[in-house]
Amino acid sequence: MSYHPHGKHLIAGARIATETTWQSSPATGPAHDFSTGTPALVAQACAAAERAFWTFGYSSRAERAALLHAIADAIEARGVEITDIGTRESGLPAARLEGERGRTTGQLRLFAEHILKGAYLDRRFDAVQPDRQPPRPELRMIQRPIGPVAVFGASNFPLAFSVAGGDTAAALAAGCPVVVKGHSAHPGTGEIVADAIAEALAGQGMDPGVFSLVQGGRRDVGEALVQDPRIRAVGFTGSLGGGRALFDLCARRPDPIPFFGELGSVNPMFCLPAAMAARGAGIARGWAGSLTMGAGQFCTNPGIAVVLEGPGAEAFTQEACAALEAVPPQAMLTDGIADAYRKGRDRLRASPGVREVLTSVCDQRNATPTLYEVSADDWLANPALGEEVFGPLGMVLRCRDADQMLAVARALEGQLTCTLHLDAGDTALARRLMPVLERKAGRLLANGFPTGVEVCDAMVHGGPYPASTNFGATSVGTLSIRRFLRPVCYQNLPEALLPADLLG
Amino acid sequence: MSYHPHGKHLIAGARIATETTWQSSPATGPAHDFSTGTPALVAQACAAAERAFWTFGYSSRAERAALLHAIADAIEARGVEITDIGTRESGLPAARLEGERGRTTGQLRLFAEHILKGAYLDRRFDAVQPDRQPPRPELRMIQRPIGPVAVFGASNFPLAFSVAGGDTAAALAAGCPVVVKGHSAHPGTGEIVADAIAEALAGQGMDPGVFSLVQGGRRDVGEALVQDPRIRAVGFTGSLGGGRALFDLCARRPDPIPFFGELGSVNPMFCLPAAMAARGAGIARGWAGSLTMGAGQFCTNPGIAVVLEGPGAEAFTQEACAALEAVPPQAMLTDGIADAYRKGRDRLRASPGVREVLTSVCDQRNATPTLYEVSADDWLANPALGEEVFGPLGMVLRCRDADQMLAVARALEGQLTCTLHLDAGDTALARRLMPVLERKAGRLLANGFPTGVEVCDAMVHGGPYPASTNFGATSVGTLSIRRFLRPVCYQNLPEALLPADLLG
Repeated sequence: MSYHPHGKHLIAGARIATETTWQSSPATGPAHDFSTGTPALVAQACAAAERAFWTFGYSSRAERAALLHAIADAIEARGVEITDIGTRESGLPAARLEGERGRTTGQLRLFAEHILKGAYLDRRFDAVQPDRQPPRPELRMIQRPIGPVAVFGASNFPLAFSVAGGDTAAALAAGCPVVVKGHSAHPGTGEIVADAIAEALAGQGMDPGVFSLVQGGRRDVGEALVQDPRIRAVGFTGSLGGGRALFDLCARRPDPIPFFGELGSVNPMFCLPAAMAARGAGIARGWAGSLTMGAGQFCTNPGIAVVLEGPGAEAFTQEACAALEAVPPQAMLTDGIADAYRKGRDRLRASPGVREVLTSVCDQRNATPTLYEVSADDWLANPALGEEVFGPLGMVLRCRDADQMLAVARALEGQLTCTLHLDAGDTALARRLMPVLERKAGRLLANGFPTGVEVCDAMVHGGPYPASTNFGATSVGTLSIRRFLRPVCYQNLPEALLPADLLG
Repeated sequence: MSYHPHGKHLIAGARIATETTWQSSPATGPAHDFSTGTPALVAQACAAAERAFWTFGYSSRAERAALLHAIADAIEARGVEITDIGTRESGLPAARLEGERGRTTGQLRLFAEHILKGAYLDRRFDAVQPDRQPPRPELRMIQRPIGPVAVFGASNFPLAFSVAGGDTAAALAAGCPVVVKGHSAHPGTGEIVADAIAEALAGQGMDPGVFSLVQGGRRDVGEALVQDPRIRAVGFTGSLGGGRALFDLCARRPDPIPFFGELGSVNPMFCLPAAMAARGAGIARGWAGSLTMGAGQFCTNPGIAVVLEGPGAEAFTQEACAALEAVPPQAMLTDGIADAYRKGRDRLRASPGVREVLTSVCDQRNATPTLYEVSADDWLANPALGEEVFGPLGMVLRCRDADQMLAVARALEGQLTCTLHLDAGDTALARRLMPVLERKAGRLLANGFPTGVEVCDAMVHGGPYPASTNFGATSVGTLSIRRFLRPVCYQNLPEALLPADLLG
């Protein structure tokens, strides 16, 4: 079944066309026309979201859980069309789109169950103490939704980090209306999912203003969205440059609002000597697999392998090179991303001390992997070598000794993840690394690869800047709902005026 | 016992004098010389804090609880000197300083008990699922301390919101070293408390770098502190202008950090008709008391009383005026604050529609209360009438009807508190007001006055901008520890490498 996009915005349940259009640039198949977003349309969506908050912000958790299930159902009902347009727009294989659809609906249903449990409300109660001097009043606290939330989806997850992705699921679960700025890499995929959300809202008898999708095409659309006075917070997944620009706009508002940006990282792996001696070749092959999954276009792509000098390092590089060489060309998500990959790859190759082990071929949109090698001395002397290159690019970083490995850890910028490959004999060195790595990343993992990001209670997908703009938050997992809540204290209020969640 | 300040900074346990000095400006008694803060000294304190984090950040909760108790003990041991210099510097009466000392030590001990309970760690565990495809790894999460924290104390609470106040207590409880920028209104009080903290650290055998106090005197000290690369977050209580300037510096850092600023508010009271008919005079007298407590120098001072037009409004104003007239002149905290009070008072009086009911007398440092009256029409037409004037200034805001009262609620900026005075007959109107007020303030209270801020689990001292810069946080109560924590996820790590708190 081939899906033909209608190309319109979805504003509070209405499909709206604007005067000008832009053309999508799919990896395969025909381009389509999409209405261009405008600041006026953003204002309309935000006004509808603000109006809807007066009911949606006071809906019951059961009502919102039903909505989340209904959205998941409506997405599943459109599964074939979503995979059709999604594969064409992103160049990702059908199995990936299907898996990502499962992740997206699973995430929506997980949040439905999560809010029904109620622990996220963090209810607190301090009883009255009438005999204390002065008497203590009764105090209750609960986490309340913050109001309308803006969401910017990612290019690399057209479903799970996009229109009905983690940010939208968390915001709706909290009780916050959502205005999504559509990603221009997958506008048709975005519009089907938006239609699914609108259908679910209508089916639940909820205010259609709870959700709007403004398609892109102009830079001022995103700028208008984060500066709209009705928007209370922003969820963003994307590049450091684009994210920082929007972060700055949020901070400069007359009333600053939080910008929850997940901006990517290089996700270093530290390969400790006992593990390398026992199974270095296996680690190298696993690395090559993680590095090239989805053409390396993951926020958690492990771009750097830190090893100790010696024959083990040589064998590791050779094994990784052999595995990477066997990987066929893969489609990048957009021409722009392919271009940035070429530029990043060439910039690194031109840096002092960088040795090219495997040369990548990257035409307009399709790329094979790159493998570089560099000494820790050269890497430490050049902070630009620690910047992310989005795509299937790996760098083996050779350290003189354990102390230099520790120096590399200390020199890292903020990361989403840091990985240790270790065996029992590596515990002493790992104990030295742990306190350093813990300050650098939101997630630490052992003997695995960071590219699988579980959606669960304990997940942290975030970390110190530039991995994210808020080291106290995560954008994946149930804890991510906290971004869209604020504590409110009720002192001596009669029960008739308290939120239902505080009594129930 | 008269305390004579040594006038030095306290940097990681060492008393350090700088080349230049400045003179304090106490409300009574002699001025003293204090060493001037410098950016170099800030850097020294931050470097010591960063070094200390490697041990303090891994101390046990029992060790930190013992430290908090030891600080409370050391403050109590200096009680007489603290009250002596504190009353002279601030002009606040001895009973207030003694009460505030109890609040300060109580707060330190409350955090000791709070961390021992462990709930604040928000430990999460997702078990391994080896048979799932792909297998799910074991995932654990815990909240970890963020690193060195900068604290800016408030002029109006020389103990409870200053050197060892709520921000410092929460940061130390979390495991974060603290660098305090001393407030120039009470440098001598600050130095005694700093000495108490240093003594407690030494007694517990902890790194002295866990705490430093850099005295003020120069604007670039605070600017250097919030921009130091080792500082991970800032706790601030003070003015909107000063707070926003520091917030902007934090947001513009190469690596932005959170600035938790509590910037004050006007804390409106909504006096509903049934309550006014039954006990309007009592509310008016209570208001006058709350408004003039501590010369009105509280963040939660209720500056606006919103009433309905009619004979009740007239009687309310007369009763409040009579009660305020009886209040003798009180010392303001600093000459600058007295000056700002005079200017704010005169600015409001010059605004269209503002009627002066009670004229204030305010010489260089001592002030009597001001009472103004204004119609809601005039107030709504002039947003500047909603800005805080720090000091004993009240404004009665007369509304035509319930709808206009609602319009006033909607027009409010962010507040720390909103108060309802209501009886059973007011429930319907209160139900209309509640959703609006809930979006405006961190704390809603009924039939009381906001000036008593309980230190407890359910307290929220914060709110939408400009009440605070982070509506998701509180600066009073146990929830305030969350500002200085970040979630870290551990995937498949051997137990030998996990933080003790995750296993215990």
